[in-house]
Amino acid sequence: MGPFEQLQALVAEDMAAVNTLIRTRMASEHAPRIPEVTAHLVEAGGKRLRPLLTLAAAQICGYQGTHHQLLAATVEFIHTATLLHDDVVDESDKRRGRPTANLLWDNKSSVLVGDYLFSRSFQLMVETGNMKALGILANASAVIAEGEVLQLSAAQDISTTEEIYLQVVRGKTAALFAAACEVGAVISDAPEVHAKALLAYGDALGIAFQIVDDLLDFGGTSATLGKNIGDDFRERKLTLPIILAVAKADTTERAFWQRTIGKGEQREDDLAHALRLMDGHGTLDQTRQKALDWAEVARAALGPLPDSELKSVLADLADFVVSRVV
Amino acid sequence: MGPFEQLQALVAEDMAAVNTLIRTRMASEHAPRIPEVTAHLVEAGGKRLRPLLTLAAAQICGYQGTHHQLLAATVEFIHTATLLHDDVVDESDKRRGRPTANLLWDNKSSVLVGDYLFSRSFQLMVETGNMKALGILANASAVIAEGEVLQLSAAQDISTTEEIYLQVVRGKTAALFAAACEVGAVISDAPEVHAKALLAYGDALGIAFQIVDDLLDFGGTSATLGKNIGDDFRERKLTLPIILAVAKADTTERAFWQRTIGKGEQREDDLAHALRLMDGHGTLDQTRQKALDWAEVARAALGPLPDSELKSVLADLADFVVSRVV
Repeated sequence: MGPFEQLQALVAEDMAAVNTLIRTRMASEHAPRIPEVTAHLVEAGGKRLRPLLTLAAAQICGYQGTHHQLLAATVEFIHTATLLHDDVVDESDKRRGRPTANLLWDNKSSVLVGDYLFSRSFQLMVETGNMKALGILANASAVIAEGEVLQLSAAQDISTTEEIYLQVVRGKTAALFAAACEVGAVISDAPEVHAKALLAYGDALGIAFQIVDDLLDFGGTSATLGKNIGDDFRERKLTLPIILAVAKADTTERAFWQRTIGKGEQREDDLAHALRLMDGHGTLDQTRQKALDWAEVARAALGPLPDSELKSVLADLADFVVSRVV
Repeated sequence: MGPFEQLQALVAEDMAAVNTLIRTRMASEHAPRIPEVTAHLVEAGGKRLRPLLTLAAAQICGYQGTHHQLLAATVEFIHTATLLHDDVVDESDKRRGRPTANLLWDNKSSVLVGDYLFSRSFQLMVETGNMKALGILANASAVIAEGEVLQLSAAQDISTTEEIYLQVVRGKTAALFAAACEVGAVISDAPEVHAKALLAYGDALGIAFQIVDDLLDFGGTSATLGKNIGDDFRERKLTLPIILAVAKADTTERAFWQRTIGKGEQREDDLAHALRLMDGHGTLDQTRQKALDWAEVARAALGPLPDSELKSVLADLADFVVSRVV
């Protein structure tokens, strides 16, 4: 069993309750379009990594009640709402191997059902009565939206720095990972030092996770052309492999990046050339190394927490996340 | 001075603080696109009726602190977020007499900046530390989103009933009016009967307001063709004047509504014919009468509250809202 399956096994009972919560709260009494859209996305079966983190954090902190289940469902709702809106923004046609909701229904439904899920997430967390947890999730939501807008304006701009990239990644991914972990501690009334440790773990895990995702968009470090490779390149998104390659570019190479990403004038063999440039400067390997570094930060962040099986699993999970790119 | 100006005058000091809150909290440290979009909408200057209602409700209930200002700003943020998303959903090009954000920037920016404002509204209300107010606003947000989705599926369906219309109206307008009023009472720790009275007032006021809006889309009761008349007809939205006309339609008329609204096959003189049909059955007058009835419900709902100048102004405001269609 890999660390992800171990994590699932250790919080299986709680997760079953969370899945029931997700199913029942995604429904709507009055608007049948809502369960249609949400069921499509939910049945496609995401990994539900974020709610698993909330449950694990609460268990590590010795929580005894059931409110962590509400928070776990909250986190998954926020995530699902952002996926629906992301697919509209990115004009995506595939998600989890299935056609996206914006394709099957329309952009309108995706925008409004996303809003509905966001509101429902808000209702769920209010039920916990825990104002501190609410504050954390409210802040995370703002950081997520801010990160998405930042990504929008950073796209197509080849002067985007690694620092801006990190800010975008913290927004689009790490903020919710961090909040998911932190609220598990907060609902348990855990000592501040444990809450901070879990927050730092979620932040680093989220960054490692997103860097790996961005690397996989170029096929990983092997940099071979294949199916679904280069979406970010075609969408002119400045992810780490490109940012590092631009930093090392000579005049000709810079002109290439400016034409393909800055101006969006892309020809058939540009992606292959982009991969050759990144390979030549070793930026795919460097990107992987940075993901490994963040995984190490995540593992180390768990230090202050009391030793337990679940703590070891979370530590291994950090390495596992990066192992997707060998 | 009309009742709206009187309302503004009676809560002017608080409203100045709310306007400052709105300006500062709409900004974003990291993503400059956000203040660009929000400033465009905010400077266009809405009436800010919803935050005025929150301030008035709190003042009527004798509130002494400053948290009602946070809730008033919250309510305006939720409203602004829904406007941004509405314009994407309706593919609108004008709002408050200016080009919409989705036209000036793009749909992506409107979706994401709307999400940002929604998150910011959430942060604002968390600052009050009032869990009951949070619950009310969370519920209102869910009802709003649900109403919008319901409107989406009810559009183009000429079997839409007055009951469904009322549900849509409660979602798109009355839920936030009602919540705006109720949280003013809740933050003041007002007796339950006062909170309920203000909730009922906001609900009825919102319904009257939206019915009038829908009537004005057909030029009011005079039913003359003019600028910006018939947007709902062209967008195949089933609003009350049409629903009432469909209910009285003979076979030929029903075929007309089915063709123009159901199938969306519209010709140049169809709007003029639609107006003649509505006029013939008196459904524009009936619609106005229903708005007047709801204004009367709003006025009566204030009954349990102690008499005050502000209470009289709110009562007059209900009539004023309907006076837009004479």
